[in-house]
Amino acid sequence: MWIYEANLLCDVEVTYPDPRLAQLLMAQYGGPNGAMAAAMQYLNQRFTMENKRVRQLLVDIGTEKLGHLEMIGVMIRKLLKGLSPKQARESGIAQHYVEHRNGLFYVNPSGNTWTADYLQHVGEPIADIMSNLALEARSRTIYENLITLTEDPCVQDTLRFLRERSLVHAARFQEALFILGEGT
Amino acid sequence: MWIYEANLLCDVEVTYPDPRLAQLLMAQYGGPNGAMAAAMQYLNQRFTMENKRVRQLLVDIGTEKLGHLEMIGVMIRKLLKGLSPKQARESGIAQHYVEHRNGLFYVNPSGNTWTADYLQHVGEPIADIMSNLALEARSRTIYENLITLTEDPCVQDTLRFLRERSLVHAARFQEALFILGEGT
Amino acid sequence: MWIYEANLLCDVEVTYPDPRLAQLLMAQYGGPNGAMAAAMQYLNQRFTMENKRVRQLLVDIGTEKLGHLEMIGVMIRKLLKGLSPKQARESGIAQHYVEHRNGLFYVNPSGNTWTADYLQHVGEPIADIMSNLALEARSRTIYENLITLTEDPCVQDTLRFLRERSLVHAARFQEALFILGEGT
Amino acid sequence: MWIYEANLLCDVEVTYPDPRLAQLLMAQYGGPNGAMAAAMQYLNQRFTMENKRVRQLLVDIGTEKLGHLEMIGVMIRKLLKGLSPKQARESGIAQHYVEHRNGLFYVNPSGNTWTADYLQHVGEPIADIMSNLALEARSRTIYENLITLTEDPCVQDTLRFLRERSLVHAARFQEALFILGEGT
Amino acid sequence: MWIYEANLLCDVEVTYPDPRLAQLLMAQYGGPNGAMAAAMQYLNQRFTMENKRVRQLLVDIGTEKLGHLEMIGVMIRKLLKGLSPKQARESGIAQHYVEHRNGLFYVNPSGNTWTADYLQHVGEPIADIMSNLALEARSRTIYENLITLTEDPCVQDTLRFLRERSLVHAARFQEALFILGEGT
Amino acid sequence: MWIYEANLLCDVEVTYPDPRLAQLLMAQYGGPNGAMAAAMQYLNQRFTMENKRVRQLLVDIGTEKLGHLEMIGVMIRKLLKGLSPKQARESGIAQHYVEHRNGLFYVNPSGNTWTADYLQHVGEPIADIMSNLALEARSRTIYENLITLTEDPCVQDTLRFLRERSLVHAARFQEALFILGEGT
Repeated sequence: MWIYEANLLCDVEVTYPDPRLAQLLMAQYGGPNGAMAAAMQYLNQRFTMENKRVRQLLVDIGTEKLGHLEMIGVMIRKLLKGLSPKQARESGIAQHYVEHRNGLFYVNPSGNTWTADYLQHVGEPIADIMSNLALEARSRTIYENLITLTEDPCVQDTLRFLRERSLVHAARFQEALFILGEGT
Repeated sequence: MWIYEANLLCDVEVTYPDPRLAQLLMAQYGGPNGAMAAAMQYLNQRFTMENKRVRQLLVDIGTEKLGHLEMIGVMIRKLLKGLSPKQARESGIAQHYVEHRNGLFYVNPSGNTWTADYLQHVGEPIADIMSNLALEARSRTIYENLITLTEDPCVQDTLRFLRERSLVHAARFQEALFILGEGT
Repeated sequence: MWIYEANLLCDVEVTYPDPRLAQLLMAQYGGPNGAMAAAMQYLNQRFTMENKRVRQLLVDIGTEKLGHLEMIGVMIRKLLKGLSPKQARESGIAQHYVEHRNGLFYVNPSGNTWTADYLQHVGEPIADIMSNLALEARSRTIYENLITLTEDPCVQDTLRFLRERSLVHAARFQEALFILGEGT
Repeated sequence: MWIYEANLLCDVEVTYPDPRLAQLLMAQYGGPNGAMAAAMQYLNQRFTMENKRVRQLLVDIGTEKLGHLEMIGVMIRKLLKGLSPKQARESGIAQHYVEHRNGLFYVNPSGNTWTADYLQHVGEPIADIMSNLALEARSRTIYENLITLTEDPCVQDTLRFLRERSLVHAARFQEALFILGEGT
Repeated sequence: MWIYEANLLCDVEVTYPDPRLAQLLMAQYGGPNGAMAAAMQYLNQRFTMENKRVRQLLVDIGTEKLGHLEMIGVMIRKLLKGLSPKQARESGIAQHYVEHRNGLFYVNPSGNTWTADYLQHVGEPIADIMSNLALEARSRTIYENLITLTEDPCVQDTLRFLRERSLVHAARFQEALFILGEGT
Repeated sequence: MWIYEANLLCDVEVTYPDPRLAQLLMAQYGGPNGAMAAAMQYLNQRFTMENKRVRQLLVDIGTEKLGHLEMIGVMIRKLLKGLSPKQARESGIAQHYVEHRNGLFYVNPSGNTWTADYLQHVGEPIADIMSNLALEARSRTIYENLITLTEDPCVQDTLRFLRERSLVHAARFQEALFILGEGT
């Protein structure tokens, strides 16, 4: 079970509202390699992970990714703050505004709704952990792309933090492969 | 942010493994009216809910639904315990087994993968809370169907517990409508 | 069975072609809370609605929503009238034009194709009618968003008409809840 | 606009309830080549069909397909009549029952939800009518398969009727190709 | 089995990079009527095509469409060449860039991921070949739209070549209908 | 471009028709970790792979996977040979038969249609190759599951052959990681 604490894993600031950037950040909210995908993948895999240490790891990282999902959600909301219909049209995100106003939804920047087809689980420990390592590598690429696509230093700081966490998670999944008895 | 505690919201027992029942229970794991749908819908809606008490409510119930998702996951796993390939074929769930062994995935009983197309969010408080009330009502119907579809008293107990929680959540969403100033 | 009459439920005018607005209106043509969703949901639910008056209501409103779908279709076509490839590129809807020219398709403004995953049906009368009430509330929010996103008075008139009809439908679904013996 | 008349295009009988057959008939209710697909495809294409006679044809056949959708819905309901949870488990359709009881949903026999990805529209008259001819041919194949998959003479009668109508529709789409100036 | 030869079916040039045009060309890469759809449809249908000449035809054209998919891929890559993050934002394709950089993915211009729901197969030879004829007609419409949406003469040349091949394929599918004993 | 050769990569035999096994094998035809997924993923990734040797590798393995897709297709067809409607009902695959007769379609054993949402591509070489390594590991798990789910020695032979090839491909992707300068 989970307990919610009313503070973010790490504070989130933005320099000024930027609806276009908000839309791009949805890659990490509702995209195939975003925080929701990671959280749901790890929390699902743990049910078939017999090794206790690795199962604990999946729960820990999955729970942290839920916290990242929240951070990204807050960041997007700040970037959409005070968005008027007129601004929505001018900034090119009226297509999102008409269905969700200045709110969030589990979509990628192109508007595709999130699907569990993005996720990997076959119930074989090595294959599943390798899938997680690959997901973390793809997720970091998205973070790096986002960093080059914005000039907002506050947003960049948060993205760098999240990218660093992904590196830590990758290292722990590498350890998990060793624990499972295969270092490849 | 969330903190994980290593115990279930409520203990879960099954009388004996029953792969077919496991498959039906996936309605509450990865189906359109299941616990994942409820959790993700409420946790997404809170970002646009300006009223603080209602926002808190969405986070509370969303977090509890994550705990229900975990309980259902554990229940399904116990129902699939020790499933051999031969049993998978004989019990008619080989189609699931071949891709996930005796593990879980975010699918409904027919095997459709979960999608955020199931979720509702328009960013208007009344419309969003009404959508939640309706979701709870549908979810209870699913719990009632499941109770009639099994004779396992342990599973029925858990399903009744979850159904009761849904009634409590519906009552709290009714309160939320009052708080938001409209009792309809 | 249905009989087609060669006139619209209510006449539809637009002041001048406006491809961007056409794209936004697709929310009510092929979006999750649009007229197609409402029509198909109500016409499907009636098969399991035992109460005759409520079943009749579902057919009536479902049929009217088909008429709204037609009105919205005509409105979109008028907004796309005479669209040249050059204009399509300049107005930012070339992505739609390349696959459908200045025609229609069951997509939301982001281009997601319509899916029955948007629809709710569990076969329990109260739960199904509550789902319809919530759908009408979401649909009205979309109409309100569209009204603020355009300055075309003709289009606004039609949108207001459709919004009013949604209020009427909501009132009738409220009655249906009373008929079904539960006023909640 | 459409007007509903409270009788079926053609009466529908079944000899006895048969849940498995009900599930197979969903191919014509919510499948890629079923009545919903045909109705929605034709009613969408007409908006871009400049030729008046062909446009009228699309509306006529589209409207008739809505009536077929209703007939198939009634037939499925009769086949599911009085289905108990126990019978649902024994007949192998508990996966449907748990989410929709003995009701209908827009799914194919495997449970895939209907999507507009099934539909064809490019806004070029010849291409669109050719797509309809092909759809009718596929639909007839489904009807023929269904006839061989049941021994219920009442259901077979209805299926033969619907198959005949598809032949008539195909003949009219052939005429439409001639009207449009190309007999290929 | 297939053997790859390290040259294109036909050389591909572009006059200058043009990210917006690249995005539109994705209609023929990952769209419902594009080369991937044609290739996969024909290669799947051949398994049930008993007539040897027609089966061979399906394999031949399916294989050629794989070659067209490659040509379109190369063309899109040349149009995206050297794309910087800044250019991605300014040209309006940052939504694609953030997830795939200046690479390709099986999506249509609106970003919908390719799905086999686009494909037709019922296992009845006439119905299947008619579906292919219709697909070729739709595909040609897309090529014609693309030709009007660009002024790049090199791209237009390639598009005309591919459109011509589609005409040849349609003629061969017409022959196939005769071979199968029905000239309709 | 590709050239088709009229023989399989490796001959395929089955001991006797077995429709249920045919359905399970669809995991490798149209499932998320099957041969189509592998072929399309590698052939798409190569466009952004700057390193020539690795690009060549992606084309080679992608092309071989197309050949595996064909082998699996032939194997499924042999398992479905001579299937009558009656046998389809009795063996529990009438849901597939009604829409595709004894033919093939790009679905997984539960009937979900193939989607490019299964595929991974971010355009960063290491992340993409790691995704391929993980895909091969998952694919081998599916092969192993299939081997335990059948007792047909001919089918098992083919599955073992394909599993061996997956090991070879994984080894080559490991090499690719070294070539790309990172052995992780």
